[in-house]
Amino acid sequence: MKKIAIFAGDGIGPEIVAAARQVLDAVDQAAHLGLRCSEGLVGGAALDASDDPLPAASLQLAMEADAVILGAVGGPRWDAYPPAKRPEQGLLRLRKGLDLYANLRPAQIFPQLLDASPLRPELVRDVDILVVRELTGDIYFGQPRGLEVVDGKRRGFNTMVYDEDEIRRIAHVAFRAAQGRRRQLCSVDKANVLEATRLWREVVTEVARDYPDVQISHMYVDNAAMQLIRAPAQFDVLLTGNMFGDILSDEASQLTGSIGMLPSASLGEGRAMYEPIHGSAPDIAGQDKANPLATILSVAMMLRHSLNAEPWAQRVEAAVQRVLDQGLRTADIAAPGTPVIGTKAMGAAVVNALNLKD
Amino acid sequence: MKKIAIFAGDGIGPEIVAAARQVLDAVDQAAHLGLRCSEGLVGGAALDASDDPLPAASLQLAMEADAVILGAVGGPRWDAYPPAKRPEQGLLRLRKGLDLYANLRPAQIFPQLLDASPLRPELVRDVDILVVRELTGDIYFGQPRGLEVVDGKRRGFNTMVYDEDEIRRIAHVAFRAAQGRRRQLCSVDKANVLEATRLWREVVTEVARDYPDVQISHMYVDNAAMQLIRAPAQFDVLLTGNMFGDILSDEASQLTGSIGMLPSASLGEGRAMYEPIHGSAPDIAGQDKANPLATILSVAMMLRHSLNAEPWAQRVEAAVQRVLDQGLRTADIAAPGTPVIGTKAMGAAVVNALNLKD
Ligand SMILES: [Mg+2]
Ligand SMILES: [Mg+2]
Repeated sequence: MKKIAIFAGDGIGPEIVAAARQVLDAVDQAAHLGLRCSEGLVGGAALDASDDPLPAASLQLAMEADAVILGAVGGPRWDAYPPAKRPEQGLLRLRKGLDLYANLRPAQIFPQLLDASPLRPELVRDVDILVVRELTGDIYFGQPRGLEVVDGKRRGFNTMVYDEDEIRRIAHVAFRAAQGRRRQLCSVDKANVLEATRLWREVVTEVARDYPDVQISHMYVDNAAMQLIRAPAQFDVLLTGNMFGDILSDEASQLTGSIGMLPSASLGEGRAMYEPIHGSAPDIAGQDKANPLATILSVAMMLRHSLNAEPWAQRVEAAVQRVLDQGLRTADIAAPGTPVIGTKAMGAAVVNALNLKD
Repeated sequence: MKKIAIFAGDGIGPEIVAAARQVLDAVDQAAHLGLRCSEGLVGGAALDASDDPLPAASLQLAMEADAVILGAVGGPRWDAYPPAKRPEQGLLRLRKGLDLYANLRPAQIFPQLLDASPLRPELVRDVDILVVRELTGDIYFGQPRGLEVVDGKRRGFNTMVYDEDEIRRIAHVAFRAAQGRRRQLCSVDKANVLEATRLWREVVTEVARDYPDVQISHMYVDNAAMQLIRAPAQFDVLLTGNMFGDILSDEASQLTGSIGMLPSASLGEGRAMYEPIHGSAPDIAGQDKANPLATILSVAMMLRHSLNAEPWAQRVEAAVQRVLDQGLRTADIAAPGTPVIGTKAMGAAVVNALNLKD
C-alpha cells in the first residue's frame, strides 16, 4: 500500500489535478497498486481556509505520503498578502519540509507539436532531455550571505558552496536516471573558474565509476547554454547544481515551445513531489480550458520514480502520445484555427488511450 | 593623435587582423583620424619569441595605447605548456592589466545570413542585442574561495560579491550604450534569491534616474535564458554581472548562428580592447580561408567607443552589410555549394564597399 497526498492548489490546479487523478485511478485499478490518495490544502486555497499557505496538517499529510501530487499555486487574489503569507511560500515550505534535493525536469519534444518550438524542426525533432538539478544547496542557500556597508559603500554577497555528500547524492540520482534512458550523462560546471564546481566535477567523476554503463561527459555552463540551442539533441541527462540548473532547465523547457506539456519530479529520501512546471493560470481557471497533460505526465513520473511501476509510466506516456496522434488539443497547444477540447475531455481521452479493457 | 596597439596573435589571427587593418587604414586616411598603429606579440606568438605569453613590452604597448585590436590566441602547438604559460594567459593578463571592466558583445542577425540561425527566421529576423557584461568582479573573482576539508568532508566554495561602485560604473556604460541604440535596457539579476544581485537591481535602478530617455526593465536570469529563445527581438541592451553575462552572452551569440561575424569590445577607464569572439581556428590558419568580418566589425566598435567616430563606425558596418548583399561569403558563412572568397578578398571588398572615392 502506498500513500499519495494530493494538493490541487489554486487557479487551474483543481481541474488539471482532477484529470490526472482519473488517469491515476484507472492505472491503480488496472495495476492493483493499492494506492491510498488523500487531499490537502496548500497555497491560496490554504490561505483562504486557515490563513496559512501550508497548514501543519498539510505538511504532515505530505510527510506521511510516499509521493505528493501538486497542481499549481498562486494568483492575483493573494497578491496583497505579506511575503510570508504568499501562496508560493506554501510550495517552498513543502519542498523544504520534504527535503527534496533532486529536481527532475524533462524537456521532451512531442513530434506532434514540433511547430511550437522556436527552433528549426530539424534541430529539435529528436530532443529528449532530462535535466537533473540539485535543489537544496548551492548559492541559493549558502552562508554567509547578505547586504552590508563597508567604508560607506554598499556591498552584497552570497556564497556558492557544495560539499561532497551533497554532490554525491544528486549524482547518483542522475546516473540512475540515465540508466533508465539512453545512458548518457553530461555534468555541467564552471570548473575552470569556480572551486565549488571543480569539486562538483571531481565528485561526479568519482561517482561515475559506479556506473560503467553510463557515458559521462563534462561541459562548462556557458557552453551548455549554447549547445542547448545549437544542437540540443546531443543531450540525454544533464546534471547541474542548483543555480546553473535554474537557468538551464528553463532554457531547455523553452526549446519545446509547449510548456503546458512538461512535468517535473522533486525527489528526496523516500519522499517525492510531482507537479507540472507551468503555473496556476488564474485567467483561465474554472473554465475547463487548461491542459492537464503536464500533470498527467507528472503522474507517469510518479509511477516511475516512486511507485516502481516503470511499465505503467511508459503506458501513460504512450497514451499521451496517442491522444496527440489523434489530433486532440487543448487551446494552448492547438494550431490557430484548429478545433480544441477541454480539460475534462483531454483527461478522459488519455484514460481511454490507456486501452485498459484490452 | 590616437595610439592603437595591434596584437595579431595566433592561428588565423594575423590574416584577420591584416584584413581589418586595411579597413582601419582606409578609414584613418579618409577621416584624418591621425592614428598611430604599433604591433605587438601576445599568446603563442609571444611564447615562441620570448617564452612569455605577455612580454612586458607588449603590456606596456597596450597600456600606452588608446585602444587595442586583438586577433585571437592559442593553438595545439602550445598545448603542452604549463598553465601559466598557455597562450590564453597572455590574453587574460592583458585584460586584467588594462582593467577592462565592461565587456560589450553584440548579437546581431545579418538578414543575409538568416538561415544560419538555429531559430525560426520569423523569431530572429529583427534580433539586434548588445550584451553589456561586467568583467572584473562577481563570483569569478570573489574572496573567500577555495577547497577545504571540514569534518573529513571535502567542500568547495566561492563568493559572489558586488559593491555599489562596481555596479554603478558598468551600469553607466550600459545606459550610455543604450542611448546610442534603441534606448531600452534590460538588467538581469536573481534579486528574488541572491542579495548580491538585489544590490545590483537597487543600484541599476538608481543609475537609471540619470537616463530618463532610456527605458529600464529587470529580468531574472532564468527568465532571460528563456526569453532569449522565445522572443529574442524584445531585447536591446542586456546588462549583466560577470557570471550571468558569461552564460547569456554565449547563448545570445548562438542565436545568430554565425559566430564568425560577431565582434566584441572590452572597455576600461580610457582603455579598450577590441576582438572577434571566435577563436584562432588553427585548422585553417595561413590558408586565406578565415572570415575577417568579426574583426572588421570590432574595428567599427573601436571607431564608436574609443575614437569618437560614430559615423565612421556606421559606415564600416554598412560596408559589411553591402558585401553580404553582394553575395560575398567566406567559407564559414556560405551556404553549401555556393561560391566562397578568401580572407584577403573579403577585406578588400569591405574597403571597396566603404565607397571612399565618392
Ligand atoms: Mg528557473
Ligand atoms: Mg562564456
